[in-house]
Amino acid sequence: MQEFTYETPAPVAPELSDAELDALLAHWRAANYLAVGQIYLMDNPLLREPLRPEQIKPRLLGHWGTVPGLNLVYTHVNRLIRLRRQPALCVWGPGHGGPGVLANSWLEGSYSDVYPDISRDERGMKRLFKQFSFPGGVPSHVSPELPGSIHEGGELGYSLLHAYGAAFDNPDLLVPCVIGDGESETGPLAGSWHSNKFLDPVHDGAVLPILHLNGYKIANPTVLARLPETELHDLLRGYGYRPIEVVGDDPAHVHRQMAGALAQAVGRIDEIQAEARRGRSTDRAHWPMIILRTPKGWTGPKLVDGLPVEGTWRAHQVPLAEVRTDPEHLRQLEEWMRSYRPEELFDEEGRPRARVLECVPEGDLRLGASPHANGGRLTRSLPAPPLEDFAVTVDRPGTSTHEPTRVLGQYLARIMELTADRRDFRLMGPDETASNRLNAVYDVTAKTWQEEILPVDEHLTRDGRVMEVLSEHMCQGWLEGYTLTGRHGMFSTYEAFAHIIDSMANQHIKWLGTARKLPWRRPVPSLNYLLSSHVWRQDHNGFSHQDPGFIDHVLNKSPEVVRVYLPPDANTALSTAEHVLQSREYVNVVMAGKQPSFDWLTLDEARGHCARGAGIWEWAGTEEGRLPDVVLACAGDTPTLEILAAAQILRQRLPELAVRVVNVVDLARLLPASEHPHGMPDADFDGLFTKDKPVIFAYHGYPWLIHRLAYRRAVHPHLHVRGYKERGTTTTPFDMVVLNDLDRYRLVMDVIDRVPGLAQRQAALRQEMADTRTRHRAWVREYGEDLPEVAQWHWEG
Amino acid sequence: MQEFTYETPAPVAPELSDAELDALLAHWRAANYLAVGQIYLMDNPLLREPLRPEQIKPRLLGHWGTVPGLNLVYTHVNRLIRLRRQPALCVWGPGHGGPGVLANSWLEGSYSDVYPDISRDERGMKRLFKQFSFPGGVPSHVSPELPGSIHEGGELGYSLLHAYGAAFDNPDLLVPCVIGDGESETGPLAGSWHSNKFLDPVHDGAVLPILHLNGYKIANPTVLARLPETELHDLLRGYGYRPIEVVGDDPAHVHRQMAGALAQAVGRIDEIQAEARRGRSTDRAHWPMIILRTPKGWTGPKLVDGLPVEGTWRAHQVPLAEVRTDPEHLRQLEEWMRSYRPEELFDEEGRPRARVLECVPEGDLRLGASPHANGGRLTRSLPAPPLEDFAVTVDRPGTSTHEPTRVLGQYLARIMELTADRRDFRLMGPDETASNRLNAVYDVTAKTWQEEILPVDEHLTRDGRVMEVLSEHMCQGWLEGYTLTGRHGMFSTYEAFAHIIDSMANQHIKWLGTARKLPWRRPVPSLNYLLSSHVWRQDHNGFSHQDPGFIDHVLNKSPEVVRVYLPPDANTALSTAEHVLQSREYVNVVMAGKQPSFDWLTLDEARGHCARGAGIWEWAGTEEGRLPDVVLACAGDTPTLEILAAAQILRQRLPELAVRVVNVVDLARLLPASEHPHGMPDADFDGLFTKDKPVIFAYHGYPWLIHRLAYRRAVHPHLHVRGYKERGTTTTPFDMVVLNDLDRYRLVMDVIDRVPGLAQRQAALRQEMADTRTRHRAWVREYGEDLPEVAQWHWEG
Repeated sequence: MQEFTYETPAPVAPELSDAELDALLAHWRAANYLAVGQIYLMDNPLLREPLRPEQIKPRLLGHWGTVPGLNLVYTHVNRLIRLRRQPALCVWGPGHGGPGVLANSWLEGSYSDVYPDISRDERGMKRLFKQFSFPGGVPSHVSPELPGSIHEGGELGYSLLHAYGAAFDNPDLLVPCVIGDGESETGPLAGSWHSNKFLDPVHDGAVLPILHLNGYKIANPTVLARLPETELHDLLRGYGYRPIEVVGDDPAHVHRQMAGALAQAVGRIDEIQAEARRGRSTDRAHWPMIILRTPKGWTGPKLVDGLPVEGTWRAHQVPLAEVRTDPEHLRQLEEWMRSYRPEELFDEEGRPRARVLECVPEGDLRLGASPHANGGRLTRSLPAPPLEDFAVTVDRPGTSTHEPTRVLGQYLARIMELTADRRDFRLMGPDETASNRLNAVYDVTAKTWQEEILPVDEHLTRDGRVMEVLSEHMCQGWLEGYTLTGRHGMFSTYEAFAHIIDSMANQHIKWLGTARKLPWRRPVPSLNYLLSSHVWRQDHNGFSHQDPGFIDHVLNKSPEVVRVYLPPDANTALSTAEHVLQSREYVNVVMAGKQPSFDWLTLDEARGHCARGAGIWEWAGTEEGRLPDVVLACAGDTPTLEILAAAQILRQRLPELAVRVVNVVDLARLLPASEHPHGMPDADFDGLFTKDKPVIFAYHGYPWLIHRLAYRRAVHPHLHVRGYKERGTTTTPFDMVVLNDLDRYRLVMDVIDRVPGLAQRQAALRQEMADTRTRHRAWVREYGEDLPEVAQWHWEG
Repeated sequence: MQEFTYETPAPVAPELSDAELDALLAHWRAANYLAVGQIYLMDNPLLREPLRPEQIKPRLLGHWGTVPGLNLVYTHVNRLIRLRRQPALCVWGPGHGGPGVLANSWLEGSYSDVYPDISRDERGMKRLFKQFSFPGGVPSHVSPELPGSIHEGGELGYSLLHAYGAAFDNPDLLVPCVIGDGESETGPLAGSWHSNKFLDPVHDGAVLPILHLNGYKIANPTVLARLPETELHDLLRGYGYRPIEVVGDDPAHVHRQMAGALAQAVGRIDEIQAEARRGRSTDRAHWPMIILRTPKGWTGPKLVDGLPVEGTWRAHQVPLAEVRTDPEHLRQLEEWMRSYRPEELFDEEGRPRARVLECVPEGDLRLGASPHANGGRLTRSLPAPPLEDFAVTVDRPGTSTHEPTRVLGQYLARIMELTADRRDFRLMGPDETASNRLNAVYDVTAKTWQEEILPVDEHLTRDGRVMEVLSEHMCQGWLEGYTLTGRHGMFSTYEAFAHIIDSMANQHIKWLGTARKLPWRRPVPSLNYLLSSHVWRQDHNGFSHQDPGFIDHVLNKSPEVVRVYLPPDANTALSTAEHVLQSREYVNVVMAGKQPSFDWLTLDEARGHCARGAGIWEWAGTEEGRLPDVVLACAGDTPTLEILAAAQILRQRLPELAVRVVNVVDLARLLPASEHPHGMPDADFDGLFTKDKPVIFAYHGYPWLIHRLAYRRAVHPHLHVRGYKERGTTTTPFDMVVLNDLDRYRLVMDVIDRVPGLAQRQAALRQEMADTRTRHRAWVREYGEDLPEVAQWHWEG
């Protein structure tokens, strides 16, 4: 445990002087003006002349409704940072209010820092306006293109999780997080309030949730905005927070309240952190949060075409829709924009006046320049302890067994140990770390837990770096926030239930895919999945827990980002883990079994095999210099076992057959080189799989995925894939492979069926295989166990 | 609005007589005994002799920890039903406690009703025990095989949503819903408490949440169980409930409390419903709920191998793990089972004694026999108003435009109207119904809303049958509960964000796939998705909103259940909607655009085309009796537009080329007949697509999906697919197709590249096409609009 010499930062005055208020209002008006300009204008940014229709964009896209609230928060967080020199990172839940956040970044100069063309003057302002939601320009939401952001303003529900992920292990950081009242209706957001049970006031920073109740979604009131005040307070206190209210529609009044609320909130945060860091408190902290209740589309048009707009759902997107064709709309737009008095805000060259920038902090303290929001700037490589210390000894393949994840656990434990002071590595999981046999990590750290700890509990501490909560959304969201701010981690979960975060994974992959094209964004650590309770080892939980489709899901996304690994044993799992933990800007999916399974490769062999990603296992085949008659290919631990068992039957029963065994660790190797950076050139692929021999491919997941990866290869017409085909229930492990025709006996039958000439000559062997399958089915239903010859199988070479 | 002659049911005495208590305890002990027996025993079910190792199952699978709590609830809900003759349906959130629920179904006889082999005697009890979690037997969780269930005990988080879905439009139904404290940590569950803002006490039944705090998950304490009491109450009151506590570990004491709590809860429910139904209350109701705090693994082994088990996470699954090999474990198991005094519970033949069954209701009132839990028993076909009333007139293809979903909205409105009294049809959506242009439904119904309604609000009423909440999880969960209890509905949502409920869709498809194999389960209405804000029309929201992978996701699942439709225009959308709304036991995914798009087919043509699922559009091609030189295929509205525009260019510029245009509505038609019930025989497929001509296929989603569906077809080597390849941003609709190489000009280039001989002869045309693409890119970046020739395009035939 580190020693802290903790000093409480200076408090902030809760009351604004009139001059301060004036400056804050100027900044806010400027941001509002710039946001409206982005939504509407292609030209005439400073309104030097009356607006003309051709200066209006042909497609009006953007979300005005939430913008004035976001601008209020940005303005006041600026003040706070400036007064306290407080490092902060803001998460904008209603990030579809992109023009507001963008406006602020332009005002503070962080935007022009990374996009010098969008300069802080009239020329830049015109470009700023035109590029927004415009072909060749920038998206309408907060996105990777926007400096200061780690949170895409698209899919809703994850803002608070990202904020907590950013705050973990960043003790000096303040993370204000604006949460929209629409977003609040999502399940992931509703659950994520409980993140405060996992935030350690000693080692972690502070999250300040700002619940922005503007009353409406796209077309409806919101659930939280219509709750009676006491019920809303009960709810937030029940979540463990202490709410502070800011309510109103008079700008000056709201600005004064907001300044007071933020001062009160950081004062309370200071107290909590000081007490905890001086060791004076062991009770769980009740952190402050702010309820901000302002009208939707505040300061925008009150009435349009006779209908109320400000303060209603009609202000959600573009309040005036027909500006190009309706002169009255055009007039209203100009009146609206002039209401911010642009001439007071920008000088003759279109530069923000000094008064506007009075509240803005400098350098890396600007929200748009926060190094935490460009996490690669802060990333340190993880220690890479020698794998030799953890590798299992393999004298002969397939004779000893280990639990791959237990071996992996020792490796992860060592990394935990080596990062004990740095605190930049965490393990996330939905209550599965021990069940996934990674429990060696508990020798060096524990699970973080801020609630009461009872004597009977094990491995719970305030400052643990294993995070367990029964919510895949929380694990995923925290880890996204943690890695985007430059730290490392792994998320270990059930394969089937990885689908719970399909959409989050989508968004993160899209984020990384865009971010890696931006030269000013530095590469952040990869987001790593360890799927160890996989489809073939969910025999005890049954059909509902069997789904290997997460691989299919991620392989639909950008090949620059996505990697899928299926290490077949303990040493390959180790080598894969080392690789993914050192990598940057990827989403790595690693499938590794937790049940005892055979060791096939020594560490050296494993390293070579993983580096190649796919290769011939000569010791398992019977080629011996001949051309192969058949290729037995496999990807995944269970398919590898069945392929080797089939190879052994063939070796013993059909020794004249030249069998080649190919194992695939890195699934993307199957793709053409033109489609994935790991894709294999045709010549190499043909060298492995031949151009025209039958290939029996035993695959971990849905068989058609292998066809989709390999359909351009010469051998494709001869490719026969076995995999999971949605047949499952609670049964034995071997019965699972039999149900899905992936078992050794079926594979031998496939060989006999597909190698020319064998079907007739080997009808008896084929029948014997079929009979064994029948015998197995009867046996397992009677005794509840696999056939002895399966249970006792090992490789005989 | 219906008139109600509402009568309040008789109240239930809150206090138990000693005889009642004795009978309830006997039932509970019997259920506990039977649950332990299922986890452990293959034989000797009544313990007629001392247990021997070979009577123990070789694989011990099951979750004991939650079982005694579930059994307590089942026992007391039995009593309630019996005393009140109250129709009820129970949802068991911790459904991994399968042996408990199964035990109760066996006790009440509903299990033997559907599985006569598992009779209510010793022979049946032996089979009941052996089949549990055993090969060829039943899964370890609550599953479709279990009568009375509509909720799979696998993936956690959706119990309360299923309960609400079941209660909607079932005014007489009581739906107790047990929620585990593990499950409570999930986002979807945390959000779903707010379902009470959408339940109308007049037309809907009552949901009674029972939060079962047994303190631990698999390996950790739970967040809610460790909250200080006041904080938990704040939270639940904040969610709008009035909690009643039941706490303890002394069985008699807890049983007495539980009886009182249930009596109090139904008393309060009676009051709420009576007030609302007599029109005396317009305030939102604050429904009761129960906090049930009992030890995990209650009544099980206290200590095993010297470690505490009862009341800790160690009781989660199998408390005694080595019973077959460790004599002390075997002894403890026998002691544990005998502690329930089986001889008092079962007679000599192994039948439950009268005292045990005293609390059990009869006939369809038994929870395992509830017709609501076998919803097909209650399903009425939806009205099918004539499509002629809604169809658009099409004189010539591609000359008029309509918004397909707006046309669809009128059809849905008519069904809403025709079911106004029946109330068995609902529309769900995350705040998108109007934005998806289905707003005609508001002419006949409204959005349900129980919170305050302000004068400015539109289309909100207490009893509306459109349900809008910004949570895909809630929409999906409600609709699952609604359709599984035999009613109809449609879920309209963003295509990209359908991934949010990937895992729920998985589970529902798995449920239906299993249920349709059970003859006693009657077919329930299909779950229908309408994805109208799709990848090609998310140009205004950008990259984060563009993902067509939900189709790939569902097509990985059981072909018996999954259907995907891509109607290309308004009339085909109507015909598709009619079909899916009349169907049973499917998950139907319908993609229909909301933007104005061309009408191609008359209603009659649309009906024929949809019935075939795929067909040649002769009017669009230039075959005229010749063999085609090239096939232009399309699936989806945007791809259809681009293919027809390409066909028109070819018709005008290369009139000598014989072009065939094929449109695919029903995607599964592309699969072989052996792989999907809708799959097309090879001969038909070859007849449509030829065996050897170049096929240029413009597809709505990821192009490789078409390869995966069609890789076995003769023409596959000649198949060239264009689709979405993760290139997107905020831009114009036509720029989106250009970015993804799906545009008409690129398609013409593809034809030139692939039809033998054209490349050389038509180099100039190819260059012209390439130049037009370049010209478009420059134009769109300058003006923010599509090229005039694209914007003004229409079919000229």
